[in-house]
Amino acid sequence: MLKVGIIGASGYTGEELARLLCVHPEVTLAVATSRQYAGKKLSDIYPNLRGFADLVVTDVVVEELVAKADLFFTAVPHQTAMSIVPTLMEAGKKVIDLSADFRISDPVVYEKWYQKHTAPEYLSKAVYGLPEIHRQEIVKTELVANPGCYPTSIILGLAPLLKAGVIDPHSLIADSKSGVSGAGRSAAVGSLYCEVSDGFKAYKVAEHRHTPEIEQEVGRLADCPVVMSFTPHLVPMARGILSTIYAKLIEGVSGDQISDLYSVFYQNERFVRMCPAGDFPATQFVRGSNFCDIGFKVDPRTGRIVILSAIDNLVKGAAGQAVQNMNLICGFPEETGLLGVPLFP
Amino acid sequence: MLKVGIIGASGYTGEELARLLCVHPEVTLAVATSRQYAGKKLSDIYPNLRGFADLVVTDVVVEELVAKADLFFTAVPHQTAMSIVPTLMEAGKKVIDLSADFRISDPVVYEKWYQKHTAPEYLSKAVYGLPEIHRQEIVKTELVANPGCYPTSIILGLAPLLKAGVIDPHSLIADSKSGVSGAGRSAAVGSLYCEVSDGFKAYKVAEHRHTPEIEQEVGRLADCPVVMSFTPHLVPMARGILSTIYAKLIEGVSGDQISDLYSVFYQNERFVRMCPAGDFPATQFVRGSNFCDIGFKVDPRTGRIVILSAIDNLVKGAAGQAVQNMNLICGFPEETGLLGVPLFP
Amino acid sequence: MLKVGIIGASGYTGEELARLLCVHPEVTLAVATSRQYAGKKLSDIYPNLRGFADLVVTDVVVEELVAKADLFFTAVPHQTAMSIVPTLMEAGKKVIDLSADFRISDPVVYEKWYQKHTAPEYLSKAVYGLPEIHRQEIVKTELVANPGCYPTSIILGLAPLLKAGVIDPHSLIADSKSGVSGAGRSAAVGSLYCEVSDGFKAYKVAEHRHTPEIEQEVGRLADCPVVMSFTPHLVPMARGILSTIYAKLIEGVSGDQISDLYSVFYQNERFVRMCPAGDFPATQFVRGSNFCDIGFKVDPRTGRIVILSAIDNLVKGAAGQAVQNMNLICGFPEETGLLGVPLFP
Amino acid sequence: MLKVGIIGASGYTGEELARLLCVHPEVTLAVATSRQYAGKKLSDIYPNLRGFADLVVTDVVVEELVAKADLFFTAVPHQTAMSIVPTLMEAGKKVIDLSADFRISDPVVYEKWYQKHTAPEYLSKAVYGLPEIHRQEIVKTELVANPGCYPTSIILGLAPLLKAGVIDPHSLIADSKSGVSGAGRSAAVGSLYCEVSDGFKAYKVAEHRHTPEIEQEVGRLADCPVVMSFTPHLVPMARGILSTIYAKLIEGVSGDQISDLYSVFYQNERFVRMCPAGDFPATQFVRGSNFCDIGFKVDPRTGRIVILSAIDNLVKGAAGQAVQNMNLICGFPEETGLLGVPLFP
Repeated sequence: MLKVGIIGASGYTGEELARLLCVHPEVTLAVATSRQYAGKKLSDIYPNLRGFADLVVTDVVVEELVAKADLFFTAVPHQTAMSIVPTLMEAGKKVIDLSADFRISDPVVYEKWYQKHTAPEYLSKAVYGLPEIHRQEIVKTELVANPGCYPTSIILGLAPLLKAGVIDPHSLIADSKSGVSGAGRSAAVGSLYCEVSDGFKAYKVAEHRHTPEIEQEVGRLADCPVVMSFTPHLVPMARGILSTIYAKLIEGVSGDQISDLYSVFYQNERFVRMCPAGDFPATQFVRGSNFCDIGFKVDPRTGRIVILSAIDNLVKGAAGQAVQNMNLICGFPEETGLLGVPLFP
Repeated sequence: MLKVGIIGASGYTGEELARLLCVHPEVTLAVATSRQYAGKKLSDIYPNLRGFADLVVTDVVVEELVAKADLFFTAVPHQTAMSIVPTLMEAGKKVIDLSADFRISDPVVYEKWYQKHTAPEYLSKAVYGLPEIHRQEIVKTELVANPGCYPTSIILGLAPLLKAGVIDPHSLIADSKSGVSGAGRSAAVGSLYCEVSDGFKAYKVAEHRHTPEIEQEVGRLADCPVVMSFTPHLVPMARGILSTIYAKLIEGVSGDQISDLYSVFYQNERFVRMCPAGDFPATQFVRGSNFCDIGFKVDPRTGRIVILSAIDNLVKGAAGQAVQNMNLICGFPEETGLLGVPLFP
Repeated sequence: MLKVGIIGASGYTGEELARLLCVHPEVTLAVATSRQYAGKKLSDIYPNLRGFADLVVTDVVVEELVAKADLFFTAVPHQTAMSIVPTLMEAGKKVIDLSADFRISDPVVYEKWYQKHTAPEYLSKAVYGLPEIHRQEIVKTELVANPGCYPTSIILGLAPLLKAGVIDPHSLIADSKSGVSGAGRSAAVGSLYCEVSDGFKAYKVAEHRHTPEIEQEVGRLADCPVVMSFTPHLVPMARGILSTIYAKLIEGVSGDQISDLYSVFYQNERFVRMCPAGDFPATQFVRGSNFCDIGFKVDPRTGRIVILSAIDNLVKGAAGQAVQNMNLICGFPEETGLLGVPLFP
Repeated sequence: MLKVGIIGASGYTGEELARLLCVHPEVTLAVATSRQYAGKKLSDIYPNLRGFADLVVTDVVVEELVAKADLFFTAVPHQTAMSIVPTLMEAGKKVIDLSADFRISDPVVYEKWYQKHTAPEYLSKAVYGLPEIHRQEIVKTELVANPGCYPTSIILGLAPLLKAGVIDPHSLIADSKSGVSGAGRSAAVGSLYCEVSDGFKAYKVAEHRHTPEIEQEVGRLADCPVVMSFTPHLVPMARGILSTIYAKLIEGVSGDQISDLYSVFYQNERFVRMCPAGDFPATQFVRGSNFCDIGFKVDPRTGRIVILSAIDNLVKGAAGQAVQNMNLICGFPEETGLLGVPLFP
């Protein structure tokens, strides 16, 4: 059994990692940390885990942690991650980092959207952990930069069409909608039940930090630099992201051709499910699972294609994808521990 | 006191009309109809109305109804409306029709998106009832085609910019999100609590019937035919529509200029509220009210402007706007009965 | 126009007071305070109030405040209230205190459930502000202790039956359920959307501080000391309280007699609405209003009566009742500004 | 692999059975029926099942069904169940019936609360399928009457205390709250999102059909006939039941004794989790799982104990318990396929 640790276990992403890891047949959850809740059982912080993950959460002292596990998930904020990951790497540990710190290869771009990078030498070692796109590099790395939730939904929705060159990469607009768990478990007025329920709004319009991450991957797929519009919104639901993506279709491309492109591209991907023609995905049908459901509509009136892509932001958008990456870099079958059926209703 | 009637009082729009009319100082709710609930008190169908609207709902026999009121709101499905409105008009009644039947001036367009029109002679008599745009014509008509909910939010968001020619009318995309009350009170699996809660999805992608209505009005404002993308989504909330609208900005136009255009265009409009710069509207802050809150963001990276527009779909998107139109065609002060403060939380 | 002030305007109760007062025809909202948001417009804190309550919120300096209004609402936590109210009273101001500090007449009881009382000399001057029970004393006082939300729903549900002696006051159990706004707007993990949504739980079982307040009033109505069970629960909704109250019925009392007792007791009360026989109240039908809807069921199998009572916790359970009390002590018609129709859906 | 069938697969209980069975390591879901959706894939009715349960749903022709599986789950309404079960039994099949038809041993009681029983000869063969109470009889039967959702939560909450004689069985009140999925997937106005959201109400007060079922089992545990109060409520959430149960405590019994009674009674029960002292269960922490979480509070002021019990109504309250019963009567380890971690948030 591989010993794994979660650094930053008290947030929703940390909890979700624990939920998946505590029943994963190949690993043992050996250590979990949280500054705020050190000394409490993880299952007292999250009573759903009672009987599954009753270990006591410890404070984050990286030097002491390294001995306790072989692989670490860092589920901490950006900037904190870059201060922890080097120590773990130097101790020969495998790391799946769920922050943004190692996702953007170009430190200039990173520093423009975030802040100064204090461990830029690790940027070239890190692999962007979207297995459906970068599986070959992932299996060879020791440091996975686990993708952001919005980027995962958008990139998976666009990849087959960008690769095939059937859409104009300079026409892209991604209008994304997320559940509230994306904001984490920190006590903030904006995440209160009464502020969010029975309401809907956009936020960080045209300036969300996931933008450069999306553009980097879209650009790689399109093989040219891409600038695009990205608008995140807050939905009164706990889990889920739906991205509605608009693109100009190359003239003459039919819906059937698009359908074929998706089918071929994702034919061996267990975690991507294409909707039947005329059907669109809904976040409630991927709830609690590692699936990305995708549908689309060609609109001959406008010459655009509208792509709809749904994930559970905490699973395929975070913890589930992290476990998928762990499976890859540890040589376990990729789906191990990830084939839970989505919970509906 | 003007006697008014609601034809189709048992749906959410009918209920909302009753809620507004029962305390409107210039009118008496004289009659309300519903096939399904005939014989019951309106306040037994909607207990919130107890003590306010205890009248007994009757069956819909148009010939008998005409004598009972001076002005009618027809809150019935399209196709039904066109079978009722002519009788009311011939009896000399004023009519505010909340269906789609008289919104689209061109019967060819109407028949392409809906079905055969059986009262096309009334199309030229009807005025599209968006007061902020068509007030001058509204005050002179006897038949108001009350706008759809999505079109209201989109047109109000775009009008000042289209009029001023600062955006490209051929680049428009409206990504709209609606609460569930937009689907009405009919018992349908898709509107069940368990189907909708904690979920999000798009529907009728690139084929929703509000599209031609939006394009008609946008085309009038831009003074050219317009074809655009419109994607409706379903939000797990009861009330509210937020539209996120994308447009290519004419080069050189600044955020300040945009801000001024909105301010001037809406300076005398009591029901449009501009958000301070950097702030975006949220549906929860217009809940239960007749306001349309608007914000925007200029994105120099992409050359686009992103416009956000929020309304309560049952008020400014239906019943409230209908009362506003009634006020106009009856000579009451336009805001009468409509200045309730939005309910939050 | 009477000048009124809100001390503690940034919480949900403060906001709700502002919502009601800004359109109240007899008063002007002259001042509003908040330590946290001092210097901001109230309508920037609560954008629903934009165009209605754009005054700038100030810090709480009681000595400076007294000159600015004739009547004050203190919407601050208990303990803070008792430090402010004496100064206001000494300056000859009328005060509606929405905290618990002046609700319990017996300082020994108060200190057992709360903490030391620093202004016990005002306890005898304060009147418990439930107009349906204490109207005669309220009109004569200068200091109203505005009731708690749970107590309001429970006492109104029980009053006619206790007065008539048809239930055993020693058999009472109140099982109450509240929306999340009852927890206020402070940033706490337990009030986050993700913690509350799609969930249900009890809290402070058999130890909630509203217990002595309920027992005091129930005891007055029953004319004997009463000890009872009270269990609060948290419902995933923003507004509303429903109390389910169990009592042993005196043998031989029929449902019709109960029905008559309620009808007579509340016949002149505009804000209590009895449900038709066989019908039960629901919080969604009093949303945003000052109504208390009441229904009941006599159960001959168990010899118990089950009473259901629904209010909006922020209106009849707080701000609306406070305005009702203001109307009473200022000589305005009792319903002034309070006859908004409940908002449904 | 055991071949199993679901009769009535299109309701939420049927879907939940499919969700559990399609990944159960000992069985194959061989057939699923639905009158309404016959001919469609189960995964088109419930897209969450895509890739897991893609079998085509057939019409219900019992005679044809018997050959297709060895064990059947009947997830159909009461009255329908009793018309199907005899045919299945006569064909030698094992049956887990999720309706109420075989839960009440006394046909007189059944007929008083439901309607005429057409297969009373099977009542004595059926075993009430609450494993924690009746495991010994369950393992020997071929016909399990799977318990109702409310009864499961209430009986598990009370059993240890009734058995030990520390509470007065004639003082019981169960105040229960359920999510909306308990009402099933049928299109009914009362289950619409807009009717339920942001609201709370009681229904079928003192007359819900689960009452005799609860009283039967409570009476067995207390060893005397029991009449009790039971009030169901509707919570705006999809899944979950929380029961708040009141009982008079026998004088002198302490909280520690109660705690010990629960610990001993449930020490070997994998699906009952006791909350730490002072902690209460919440439905969100059992979501999607087969757990029943229990907490309690002794209230010396009133001499009552308040017991809180939480389940997922679709799992431990229906499909999960049915699978648990299947495991028992088929000789599989009792927890097989049921140890999914609760999904939170």
